[in-house]
Amino acid sequence: MRQRDPWLLTPGPLTTSSETKDTMLHDWGSRDDTFIATNKSIRENLLEIIDGQESHVCVPLQGSGTFVVEATLGSLLPRDGKALVLVNGAYGKRMSKILHYLGRGYEIMETSEDTPPSTIELDKRLSADARISHILVVHCETTSGILNPVSEIAKVVEKHSRRLIVDAMSSFGAIPISAKAFKFDAVMASSNKCLEGVPGIGFALIREETLKKCEGNAHSLSLDLYDQWIAMEANGQWRFTPPTHVIMAFDSAINQFLKEGGVSARNNRYSNNCKALIAGMTEMGFEVLLPNQLQAPIIVTFRMPKDPKFKFSKFYERLKEKNFIIYPGKLTVAPSFRVGCIGHIGLPEIEKALAAIKETVKELDVTDFSFE
Amino acid sequence: MRQRDPWLLTPGPLTTSSETKDTMLHDWGSRDDTFIATNKSIRENLLEIIDGQESHVCVPLQGSGTFVVEATLGSLLPRDGKALVLVNGAYGKRMSKILHYLGRGYEIMETSEDTPPSTIELDKRLSADARISHILVVHCETTSGILNPVSEIAKVVEKHSRRLIVDAMSSFGAIPISAKAFKFDAVMASSNKCLEGVPGIGFALIREETLKKCEGNAHSLSLDLYDQWIAMEANGQWRFTPPTHVIMAFDSAINQFLKEGGVSARNNRYSNNCKALIAGMTEMGFEVLLPNQLQAPIIVTFRMPKDPKFKFSKFYERLKEKNFIIYPGKLTVAPSFRVGCIGHIGLPEIEKALAAIKETVKELDVTDFSFE
Repeated sequence: MRQRDPWLLTPGPLTTSSETKDTMLHDWGSRDDTFIATNKSIRENLLEIIDGQESHVCVPLQGSGTFVVEATLGSLLPRDGKALVLVNGAYGKRMSKILHYLGRGYEIMETSEDTPPSTIELDKRLSADARISHILVVHCETTSGILNPVSEIAKVVEKHSRRLIVDAMSSFGAIPISAKAFKFDAVMASSNKCLEGVPGIGFALIREETLKKCEGNAHSLSLDLYDQWIAMEANGQWRFTPPTHVIMAFDSAINQFLKEGGVSARNNRYSNNCKALIAGMTEMGFEVLLPNQLQAPIIVTFRMPKDPKFKFSKFYERLKEKNFIIYPGKLTVAPSFRVGCIGHIGLPEIEKALAAIKETVKELDVTDFSFE
Repeated sequence: MRQRDPWLLTPGPLTTSSETKDTMLHDWGSRDDTFIATNKSIRENLLEIIDGQESHVCVPLQGSGTFVVEATLGSLLPRDGKALVLVNGAYGKRMSKILHYLGRGYEIMETSEDTPPSTIELDKRLSADARISHILVVHCETTSGILNPVSEIAKVVEKHSRRLIVDAMSSFGAIPISAKAFKFDAVMASSNKCLEGVPGIGFALIREETLKKCEGNAHSLSLDLYDQWIAMEANGQWRFTPPTHVIMAFDSAINQFLKEGGVSARNNRYSNNCKALIAGMTEMGFEVLLPNQLQAPIIVTFRMPKDPKFKFSKFYERLKEKNFIIYPGKLTVAPSFRVGCIGHIGLPEIEKALAAIKETVKELDVTDFSFE
């Protein structure tokens, strides 16, 4: 019997199903028809998830989520474009950092980590500055776990005839995004989040009409999504060696996702995980950062108890011994830690995780859950 | 019983061992100690392969080989540097294309696909142009399969006090490169070639003294090897989500490589594969592009017979039905096809491949092997 791996209660890489991992027990030629057919199927399925078959195209890319974010920004923003980055966490900040590397014009509209961007403020900024061509937003900021109001933002962006790019890394497949419900030029995500594949590729779903005009924008050969798209349309192949095993596992994961019932089923499962997690933790005495209406069912930030008996490193290690991997906090404003509710897990695993946390709290003799 | 996958007689992705693939049946947290320890071990082992423990550092990167080549060029070449690219195939050309994207200065010194660069010509070019700061060369150009004389080139580069960067993508682990035998600033390779891992990461082994001075050179956040190195040295972690399964499989593949006997053992196995392949093909009537002394034991280019009964697509398909995947030619000068001799294969597989080729030649009734 295989020894059970630790359950990964993180923002990713996540626990994946055995079926997904078993796919990787083979080798494929990356320029052979068998692989090419699977690659095509993945690209079609991803477009369907956002109802984008008629408006968008799918461009996958080797590397992590950040690679595909950088590639999308570099490929879609003209050299003389100007971006407005909506920041309320590390991933919004990272988009600014990318634009800084690229030498593209940008401004930041920042709110605190527990506050969504204001559409009123956005409206004002766009009215005041006609040079802003692109608005960049993170759908679910895993820094806190907050859900940003992308569809409302999209309406303001459309009203001003600007272009919207959405980093949906941690929400894609679990929180609906439809090209028919609101307008966006690109949505970016990766294989190893809510679609429950293994890490190694990202993808951007880009409005075809937009991408057609993007030749020559990119700052990088490897990260040129226009070139990647043109080449893949021509012969179905990746320009440069793709991570074949990761991609075949992704195909399996997507098929399992569709069989489970797509976005609504996955949203259901994760929402149930999230509710049970928050209920159990709150009952023990832990405090949640976000109010319910801002909490995405992806990852939950808990305040670090100031009780000196609660040492995060010890808490983490004891939970790992009990086969659960949690995640440190990333808040700049207050000490915190995070517990994810995504991946190939359901209520039984959440219940077991809660039991392990309860036991650990007891072992450490933590009684005061008040925080700084 | 698992159905046997096709044998991949290509330049990669290759056939890997079951042991390597079995590693991927687990999930790992990318910021957890277990994964961090394995990542450290991989980096140390890769340095040892080039005797670089005291002079170089290992910086791995997500993506294909081209990603790490672009990242190395972008990170190591100062914005006002000038490269001389030695070109005799597609991968030399690709380095020029990368420099073009990056807007860095470069010149090309080109020879035909069956001709190594001349060290006399190189000496002249370096004497004539003091602005050339970096020389870029491909160790084994899989376009033809040619082995370029890297150590002789290194001597000329050192004589002129310039810097050498070597794309050893397809040779690393099978053809010796030692930091103690000749001087280079960086060697780049990937997980899925002669080390027989699965595709998904590349790595650069960079002179530490050089890399220390490279802050601010890079054109890209994702591809900034200085930043990647500094961050990894600080906490052992990757800046952005690494392909955990690919990396754990790579660790397993490297351990198998060391157990087999390292570079000399692998060179032996591949050389035997290559000799047997050429002998068998020549006996059937096929013509090899390169003379023996230029042929690397990696992949062999055969001339396409002009006999109208020899259709490559049919030849390929019939061989695939017999469970062997070969590779199309990439020569610009003449029709050709390629057969690889690397990956988790030995003489028994080469013998079976030769039998399958012989049978296919008979089925297609090819009798005239003369070429254009």
